[in-house]
Amino acid sequence: MQITLSEISPAQCQQWLQHAIAPRPICLASTINAAGQVNLSPFSFFNLFSMVPPIVIFSASRRMRDNTTKHTLENVFEVPEVVINIVDDDMVQQVSLASCEFPKGVNEFIKAGFSEEPATLVKPPMVKESKIKMECRVIEVKPLGTKGGAGNLVICEILRMHVADSILNERGDMIEQQKLHHVARLGGHWYCRVDTSNLFEVEKPNTQLGIGIDALPENIRNSTILSGNDLGQLGNIHELPMVDPAFDDERLRSIFQYYAIDPKEMEKELHLYAKSLLQQHKTMDAWQVLLSLQ
Amino acid sequence: MQITLSEISPAQCQQWLQHAIAPRPICLASTINAAGQVNLSPFSFFNLFSMVPPIVIFSASRRMRDNTTKHTLENVFEVPEVVINIVDDDMVQQVSLASCEFPKGVNEFIKAGFSEEPATLVKPPMVKESKIKMECRVIEVKPLGTKGGAGNLVICEILRMHVADSILNERGDMIEQQKLHHVARLGGHWYCRVDTSNLFEVEKPNTQLGIGIDALPENIRNSTILSGNDLGQLGNIHELPMVDPAFDDERLRSIFQYYAIDPKEMEKELHLYAKSLLQQHKTMDAWQVLLSLQ
Repeated sequence: MQITLSEISPAQCQQWLQHAIAPRPICLASTINAAGQVNLSPFSFFNLFSMVPPIVIFSASRRMRDNTTKHTLENVFEVPEVVINIVDDDMVQQVSLASCEFPKGVNEFIKAGFSEEPATLVKPPMVKESKIKMECRVIEVKPLGTKGGAGNLVICEILRMHVADSILNERGDMIEQQKLHHVARLGGHWYCRVDTSNLFEVEKPNTQLGIGIDALPENIRNSTILSGNDLGQLGNIHELPMVDPAFDDERLRSIFQYYAIDPKEMEKELHLYAKSLLQQHKTMDAWQVLLSLQ
Repeated sequence: MQITLSEISPAQCQQWLQHAIAPRPICLASTINAAGQVNLSPFSFFNLFSMVPPIVIFSASRRMRDNTTKHTLENVFEVPEVVINIVDDDMVQQVSLASCEFPKGVNEFIKAGFSEEPATLVKPPMVKESKIKMECRVIEVKPLGTKGGAGNLVICEILRMHVADSILNERGDMIEQQKLHHVARLGGHWYCRVDTSNLFEVEKPNTQLGIGIDALPENIRNSTILSGNDLGQLGNIHELPMVDPAFDDERLRSIFQYYAIDPKEMEKELHLYAKSLLQQHKTMDAWQVLLSLQ
């Protein structure tokens, strides 16, 4: 299906794009106006964009309905500071409540039942309940258009971050990813939760290049058993392995015995076996199984 | 724990921020240089930022190691067009392979085993295997600094998107979120996978405001049983409900009988029951259980 965005309504555009570009991390932004009134609002048009200087950006879009702007945006023009609070599974319902469009001057900390905790370098308060809070200076607001639905990039330099002890690793010197249950936004009313059931690691050689899928032997590259992910793992090694005469594997021996009379079936069985080893992240064992037939 | 970013190294800064600001959606960017050489590279400093015009931004950062820039960035200066391919579970290993820093001129489509499919409005090819491809015009490149680790915002207007039939809903008029298994980046080597096991919906009244946690009766607000998420759900209704005389519930009746002599224990049991109803998204039933004690 092909969609030309200039030919559909902004509301349809929003539906397509919010389902497609996901999961989006959530920034719960705390700001303050010149009169000292606090605002708290979540934004999912948000991400990290630079390390030197450390910069995060969120977009406070113009409303599609009536082309008005959000209190958060008005506040950062008055006081160019923001505390970005990271949203996890323990607070998602309260964050959803904070996203209601309460009248100007209503403090969403109170409506959503969050506690204000003074920041150390900026005026807006931090959300005590959030496990990561980032004190930021707004270095620029960049409008992306003037119509309803136009984004306004709020470009923030992170000055200081506060991290709860409960999500640190055993040494206490870094966040332990499995302990932080981020939630993120997708299309419609959908959110996703990050936990050990859906986290996985992909090891990547940072300095050494992978040989690439184009360098795999032809019978492996054209396998009807091995998927793109399987080939990706096989190609992500620094050099084509040699047959290891010391590699002794019972299942491999039994495949050779059992399928000795049918080379086509033997190849299929070996590819299935290699595939199962790849799923267990035993890349070098999978290679030995595949090389046994070359 | 408190971290002042100006006091730590850029590499440490990267560790903290990439674990904290997550999950980050992945853009697999296809670009081309003036000589027609194709480049394909993944970026997780990426998100949607505007609907009118439809704008996505990714950052092609300057390398921390030696302050050089990526081929993607060099290409968009020569040909300001990009195809953004959305990354799902079926292609994550190949995408990891494409992220190796192959020499200039190497086509990562070939190294990572992807197929080039001609785009319709722009010169860079699309990744055939990706279920969503977006043809974009680069409207601006905005540097966020000049040192190694500085981001470069590649601001892209989406012209046309292509969506695989396999991820559409039954009517064929929108993406069905459960059918698209996005993968996203977190800190270190971590990725997460989105599927029905971790997707959940939070209904939000868009036009009507929630009453807020501050409007909840005091014994509910101060409950030792109900969590912030529970209170958030209770506060996210348009008006405080009335007792419904027709609400007849067996378990409620048995709690009233059994704990008649111990009002403190009865309240505890009612809050536990309300909590379980909230977990089943039966907000109005939970309200009736809680109101039975007021």
